[in-house]
Amino acid sequence: MLSFENDYNVGAHPKLLQRLMETNLQPQTGYGGDEFCQSAKEKIRIACNAPEAEIFFLVGGTQTNAVVIDGLLRSYEGVIAAKTGHVSLHEAGAIEYTGHKVLELQGQDGKLAAADVKQLLKTFYADESHEHMVFPGMVYISYPTELGTLYSKEELKALYAVCRAYEIPLYIDGARLGYGLMSSASDLSLPELAQLCDVFYIGGTKVGALCGEAVVFPRGGMPKNFLTVVKQHGALLAKGRVLGVQFDALFTDELYFEISRNAICRAEELKAVFQEKNCRIWRESPTNQQYLIMENAKLPALSEKVAYSFWEAYDENHTVIRFVTSWATTSEQVQALREVL
Amino acid sequence: MLSFENDYNVGAHPKLLQRLMETNLQPQTGYGGDEFCQSAKEKIRIACNAPEAEIFFLVGGTQTNAVVIDGLLRSYEGVIAAKTGHVSLHEAGAIEYTGHKVLELQGQDGKLAAADVKQLLKTFYADESHEHMVFPGMVYISYPTELGTLYSKEELKALYAVCRAYEIPLYIDGARLGYGLMSSASDLSLPELAQLCDVFYIGGTKVGALCGEAVVFPRGGMPKNFLTVVKQHGALLAKGRVLGVQFDALFTDELYFEISRNAICRAEELKAVFQEKNCRIWRESPTNQQYLIMENAKLPALSEKVAYSFWEAYDENHTVIRFVTSWATTSEQVQALREVL
Amino acid sequence: MLSFENDYNVGAHPKLLQRLMETNLQPQTGYGGDEFCQSAKEKIRIACNAPEAEIFFLVGGTQTNAVVIDGLLRSYEGVIAAKTGHVSLHEAGAIEYTGHKVLELQGQDGKLAAADVKQLLKTFYADESHEHMVFPGMVYISYPTELGTLYSKEELKALYAVCRAYEIPLYIDGARLGYGLMSSASDLSLPELAQLCDVFYIGGTKVGALCGEAVVFPRGGMPKNFLTVVKQHGALLAKGRVLGVQFDALFTDELYFEISRNAICRAEELKAVFQEKNCRIWRESPTNQQYLIMENAKLPALSEKVAYSFWEAYDENHTVIRFVTSWATTSEQVQALREVL
Amino acid sequence: MLSFENDYNVGAHPKLLQRLMETNLQPQTGYGGDEFCQSAKEKIRIACNAPEAEIFFLVGGTQTNAVVIDGLLRSYEGVIAAKTGHVSLHEAGAIEYTGHKVLELQGQDGKLAAADVKQLLKTFYADESHEHMVFPGMVYISYPTELGTLYSKEELKALYAVCRAYEIPLYIDGARLGYGLMSSASDLSLPELAQLCDVFYIGGTKVGALCGEAVVFPRGGMPKNFLTVVKQHGALLAKGRVLGVQFDALFTDELYFEISRNAICRAEELKAVFQEKNCRIWRESPTNQQYLIMENAKLPALSEKVAYSFWEAYDENHTVIRFVTSWATTSEQVQALREVL
Repeated sequence: MLSFENDYNVGAHPKLLQRLMETNLQPQTGYGGDEFCQSAKEKIRIACNAPEAEIFFLVGGTQTNAVVIDGLLRSYEGVIAAKTGHVSLHEAGAIEYTGHKVLELQGQDGKLAAADVKQLLKTFYADESHEHMVFPGMVYISYPTELGTLYSKEELKALYAVCRAYEIPLYIDGARLGYGLMSSASDLSLPELAQLCDVFYIGGTKVGALCGEAVVFPRGGMPKNFLTVVKQHGALLAKGRVLGVQFDALFTDELYFEISRNAICRAEELKAVFQEKNCRIWRESPTNQQYLIMENAKLPALSEKVAYSFWEAYDENHTVIRFVTSWATTSEQVQALREVL
Repeated sequence: MLSFENDYNVGAHPKLLQRLMETNLQPQTGYGGDEFCQSAKEKIRIACNAPEAEIFFLVGGTQTNAVVIDGLLRSYEGVIAAKTGHVSLHEAGAIEYTGHKVLELQGQDGKLAAADVKQLLKTFYADESHEHMVFPGMVYISYPTELGTLYSKEELKALYAVCRAYEIPLYIDGARLGYGLMSSASDLSLPELAQLCDVFYIGGTKVGALCGEAVVFPRGGMPKNFLTVVKQHGALLAKGRVLGVQFDALFTDELYFEISRNAICRAEELKAVFQEKNCRIWRESPTNQQYLIMENAKLPALSEKVAYSFWEAYDENHTVIRFVTSWATTSEQVQALREVL
Repeated sequence: MLSFENDYNVGAHPKLLQRLMETNLQPQTGYGGDEFCQSAKEKIRIACNAPEAEIFFLVGGTQTNAVVIDGLLRSYEGVIAAKTGHVSLHEAGAIEYTGHKVLELQGQDGKLAAADVKQLLKTFYADESHEHMVFPGMVYISYPTELGTLYSKEELKALYAVCRAYEIPLYIDGARLGYGLMSSASDLSLPELAQLCDVFYIGGTKVGALCGEAVVFPRGGMPKNFLTVVKQHGALLAKGRVLGVQFDALFTDELYFEISRNAICRAEELKAVFQEKNCRIWRESPTNQQYLIMENAKLPALSEKVAYSFWEAYDENHTVIRFVTSWATTSEQVQALREVL
Repeated sequence: MLSFENDYNVGAHPKLLQRLMETNLQPQTGYGGDEFCQSAKEKIRIACNAPEAEIFFLVGGTQTNAVVIDGLLRSYEGVIAAKTGHVSLHEAGAIEYTGHKVLELQGQDGKLAAADVKQLLKTFYADESHEHMVFPGMVYISYPTELGTLYSKEELKALYAVCRAYEIPLYIDGARLGYGLMSSASDLSLPELAQLCDVFYIGGTKVGALCGEAVVFPRGGMPKNFLTVVKQHGALLAKGRVLGVQFDALFTDELYFEISRNAICRAEELKAVFQEKNCRIWRESPTNQQYLIMENAKLPALSEKVAYSFWEAYDENHTVIRFVTSWATTSEQVQALREVL
């Protein structure tokens, strides 16, 4: 069946599988001490133009958010995030499970405005009873956001300036980082993004890997004994090579960017199809997630021919549904969807 | 100095201290197994008209909220509360520290509307990806609220009906319970309130005791091995008698209600003074917390003569400040404040 | 370089990689809802002769232990384990991180004796102040143990009888399950083991997979909303198919058992080499982990030619080192080690 | 009934109650900001000869241990303690609840030997896989211990030297501190003890107060924003004055030491009675807890006349029971017990 359900509905890019095959029987030490991880880290440092970067490979996104946020915050600190942020909504409380509050801001189009973050911080410190409240200890944003939107360079600069002024880290969830950077709406390069935050992760799961996310501290500052923190969270992969081999392949010959670009091209085709078919767009998105408002009555028939994902109820008779492209989506698939619609 | 800073700015009602003196050298077993705790529980059962009630004495409010909420929720559940709720804002993340998210609703006047809670629950279960989200496992409200407001009997009934429909407990934070029940704006009695929730606590700290809160499960249902849960939270008082003696005194001859009424009478006098002096009221409150909007320029002089509490910045030039009466406030003190203003 | 460092030093069994390739571009729903997971579960049910079994695939061992133990215990309960147990020693406190104490027993040869567990439970309930202590809520054992030893059927029966008498679950960590079951010293089959516990996991990471552990509740009883619990722990793999495909292959045509047997055969050859070379054995082990006592002076030369693992200091001049075989070890490698020694 | 059940079976020393009465209606700011807390801290600084000491008042012992240990450890660190330590055994897992493992050493007579602690630390750092283990981040001891024994100055010096060598704090649980310092077997003064650790607490609950423990960081180093940490643990008392007034009284005119001495004198009398009656002593104790081995058959009759506490089963026919004296025990009570025996 045709599937635009999400960007993790197939396996890995063939080059990654091939490298897993080729390296399969080479004995390597465990837990990320293997040579593939070292090589991948070096390539990522170059791609980020961040020679001092400290890098750690983890398995999945929620896990990465929990480990990084818990690793960086003091026990009584929370993380500022948009209400629509992945950490706020779709991680089953994994951040709270580590003991930290997600300090939710309304946000706009899935983004946090520098002014709102500054206001929150200012209000907090102006409050005479702030010692009785959760200290805002970090800012979390996603690039692209959960709504497919992007921060402009100016927006990111402004946000990071606030973080630096209040001496709290800015953390960017890059589960779909490639799909953001390769969007024609993006005015950021990977090295620029790396300069405008304290830590971010490069998503592998949604961008060509079987699993894996690369946490990057661009100018160092990884928490002390981070491997132990990761282990304590049950997040340390024994065969770290699986992550190393994949990220090494993704950052060889710009594969990561090339395959990310494919998702964007297919998303553009998808938008053209939606326009042609007079579909009702919920929100504009310049990246690989596209949202439609559909009549509920039409959904059963649609579901028989194509997999999409439920986003939210729009009103009594309509539902917001999401179509997602990925590194693996083909023009043929988009055309097949066109036929269905 | 004159103090309207809060309702815990002096010690205990003299009758409680007297009983502590009288019983001081009677040996008792520890951890709440003493005879005073038993007697106090029996009196509370009668006052609540809840013969099956299970009762546990704890020391403070934040502690009580953390223990009760953590004790009742499954690990992946969160608690629905107003953004202005004590658990949301002023407990330094004590709920999140136990691993549970506070699912914040905007609320109105510090209160949760049944319709909004129902909407949240309905939306949650309608969401096809709700397994990736925090399950709403409980509703938390305060009576009176942190803004001094009260739920009407109808409002509480509606809210409880939603909770029963979704089979989640309703928990009422009664840190200032007496000041709510004794308000002329209240249409609830203690037995009625006990029937309209699954668990609540009767605040002692703010209503005449040195410390102490009585958690009441009106129809039973206290979590299994609750004493151990309490101990694990570091919340089990060795000399449980201290709590037992005080609550026994509070629930002898309706002392709890009588002293609560004093706070309300003094608050009414306070309101009259504010009106007379053309003070700018921030929000109407029928209980013992009163809020004014004051020019910042006037605050230093005021602070020299009377203790009040900072509530929040109103605008660049004004601040919301709070005046609180308690069981111990006298008419003389209110008149002295009148002189100051 | 020759490596006997551990049983996760190479990639996956070629048949697993081949199946990952073959299924790579078939779109599947995420989070374990894919058809491969369903197929793998069905095959595991058959292999366990447990048609009612509930099964969940997780990524790694420490993660699995933390999720299962936290999922089954009440907050105030702890898990009984041997001091040498993986949860006690080598998980960086991942169990305590979930809030639960590991109640350590000395054990013998890495095993818990039924009598000792019974004694602990009996003493606990006989203690009049046991409400102030961590309740023993579960028993954790490993099969084979961290020292390579095995429980006999009688030992396991006795242990399980104690658990049933006290109504607490018995959980078996099967990180190396195949290497236990295929040992000539084992008198247990997989269906027998499944009958003698409440939950166990079938290790994939150490037995032929890139990653993955299959948690099996042989007669049902998986905690409610377990997927959410898993998500909350950051342990839910987006591309659950990666686990499904691998376990499906492992349980096709008895591959899991066949490749496990290889490790045992190679371990037998290893033992013969050690005997021939008069190596000093630290402890007898009937499974794939073999321990030698080596003079410290000889270690640097050895390390140049073969990778092994440090186990513990034996005395000032000697160290216990470990040699491990796996599904991938060849007789040629054992002979090469013979040359080195 | 006669009670030697524990040292928290009656209320507070009359001087403390009297001060609570005298200060009852003086308005004070909350949460420890009151003048009584300031005065008490100053007196404690003098008594400890530690002018730089930072002090915080908490309510109970388990709470204090959880807050201090969690406040000082990094997330992946554990606390070294004797198996018989209060944190190991009798706090219902309150330390693990904060996410930290208690690294238990066998100990002797309830005490940790410097050599054993050093061995643990040395072994940990020598282990090549120690990154996969809980880091030992602190040493916890009790003075006196849970078995009533005392560290000599030399023992404490040796232990502290190990802690300093490994740069981990030494924390002394002084729930019964006075009863240790006043023992004729003690060669330590309070200022000496304050110099031989990084943090300790002066127990109030068991030594004359209704409740309250004074945490002392003798040379500073209280964790940043400690009040918020305390609040997050639900451990911040609104009416901090209750603790301040009591500790102020305890440290006025050496009351703390004087009333502690009473417990020791009564314990000496108790020992004389036991000797006279040929009671079987379980372990020698130079402080206020005394242990007897009693025939089970004699216990019911004894229980009718005197309250003591169950310690542990000795063998099939005998039980270890504990008799405890306190600041409130009188010679008359000891003589009455003599009659009973």
